[in-house]
Amino acid sequence: MVSQRGPRRETERVPPPEGFRRMRLELAYDGADFFGWQVQPRRETVQGALERAVQELTGRKVRVFSSGRTDTGVHARAQVAHLDVPAGWKPGQLQLAMNALLPESVRVVKARRARPDFHARFDATGKEYRYSIWNAPVACPLHRRQALHVRLPLDVAAMRSAAALLEGTHDFRSFSANPRRDIGETVRTLRQLQVTRRGALVTIKAVGDGFLYKMVRSLAGHLIRVGTGAVSVEETTALLEARRRTARVETAPAHGLCLWRVSY
Amino acid sequence: MVSQRGPRRETERVPPPEGFRRMRLELAYDGADFFGWQVQPRRETVQGALERAVQELTGRKVRVFSSGRTDTGVHARAQVAHLDVPAGWKPGQLQLAMNALLPESVRVVKARRARPDFHARFDATGKEYRYSIWNAPVACPLHRRQALHVRLPLDVAAMRSAAALLEGTHDFRSFSANPRRDIGETVRTLRQLQVTRRGALVTIKAVGDGFLYKMVRSLAGHLIRVGTGAVSVEETTALLEARRRTARVETAPAHGLCLWRVSY
Repeated sequence: MVSQRGPRRETERVPPPEGFRRMRLELAYDGADFFGWQVQPRRETVQGALERAVQELTGRKVRVFSSGRTDTGVHARAQVAHLDVPAGWKPGQLQLAMNALLPESVRVVKARRARPDFHARFDATGKEYRYSIWNAPVACPLHRRQALHVRLPLDVAAMRSAAALLEGTHDFRSFSANPRRDIGETVRTLRQLQVTRRGALVTIKAVGDGFLYKMVRSLAGHLIRVGTGAVSVEETTALLEARRRTARVETAPAHGLCLWRVSY
Repeated sequence: MVSQRGPRRETERVPPPEGFRRMRLELAYDGADFFGWQVQPRRETVQGALERAVQELTGRKVRVFSSGRTDTGVHARAQVAHLDVPAGWKPGQLQLAMNALLPESVRVVKARRARPDFHARFDATGKEYRYSIWNAPVACPLHRRQALHVRLPLDVAAMRSAAALLEGTHDFRSFSANPRRDIGETVRTLRQLQVTRRGALVTIKAVGDGFLYKMVRSLAGHLIRVGTGAVSVEETTALLEARRRTARVETAPAHGLCLWRVSY
């Protein structure tokens, strides 16, 4: 019985055990149905559902590592994960078998063999998130699960101006919940922060080399406040430079957020 | 106590009773949460939810008439309905009050005063429906409630060719479930039947002066079979000319269908 659980730290890059082969999965999930990514006792999580399926298929407890944890309620269109399965398994076979066992709210969209040292988190070079807003006086029942309803009309031009101030390499400590102490670790490069409108649907696209805890939701929360006029565009720079999280930045709700892509 | 229920036939155009004023509503709803439009005992329907809310607000049983019934599971982005409310009610007030009482799965998107003889069904001059298909080997958890998953790759060019043969004024008896006996009544004008693809999402847009029972779902079912190669483009004409519903035409599932617009 090979167990990959236990005290092993998740910071190591460990090759597959003898007779196992590393697989890379692309996953889509509806965040509404899970208490986030990470395994928790007595709560349905994405990692928990995947590991249960793999255990049922292989008879072994196998850890599934993702590119990063997603919070409760956050969706994914293309989360990437890796795991080690007994060498007999072919990717297409694993995908079909997992999808047959998994709940409909999570799907293995792709599966392929990976190098033995591939690591979904350590090898990720960038991520794209999208935050969706239904901006109309009345909520839309057909978008209520995957878009935040904002009643007040959003000034998309103002949101774009604020977004432009946030793009680039900055210390994003002010736009992170619970930031680490080491200031060096809160510097990230936000390659793109775009705001687009298509009818009532306003989308914030955030592309970067990495994101701090709740960073995208904090950026979205700030841009929404700029859009409604609650804070000015100019305040963006002051907030960024303060390098301190205050109540002036709001964290937008989880259900509007979707992990769109992970690049390697 | 003014009651608009009872034996009155729904084919009449009756003005509001004394002291009442006609309102026109635009409604959006998530069909997954309802047993269709029409009131049924002990089952949640859109009409039932609306009439319950109005009764709670006005203390009166008031009938809500829509542009047409939608089946169980069918969604609406902009269904139109009318009802008569005590003259004191203003449209914005009615809208807010109804939305406060209604479940989140149905919203009054707009409300306005209507002419006393306005009738949501009789005055409708056309409708637009959209049928959504998630066309990829694996289903998408984020689209599973509002798009049909079709695993086989769809040949959109073939679907367009078949759609072009269906556009125009035809007897659509072959594309209706349970068609009426009078052949005259199964002639409809399909002004537009468009197929578009955006990534994995294939959308069928149907615009017409009116649609027979399950007609859009039958058209969608046929186009999907053309797209997978189960039937040929050419067979479309033969099916149309047969003026008889057979098993050669499939009714696509309800959850992919959305009433998009009603014109007056």
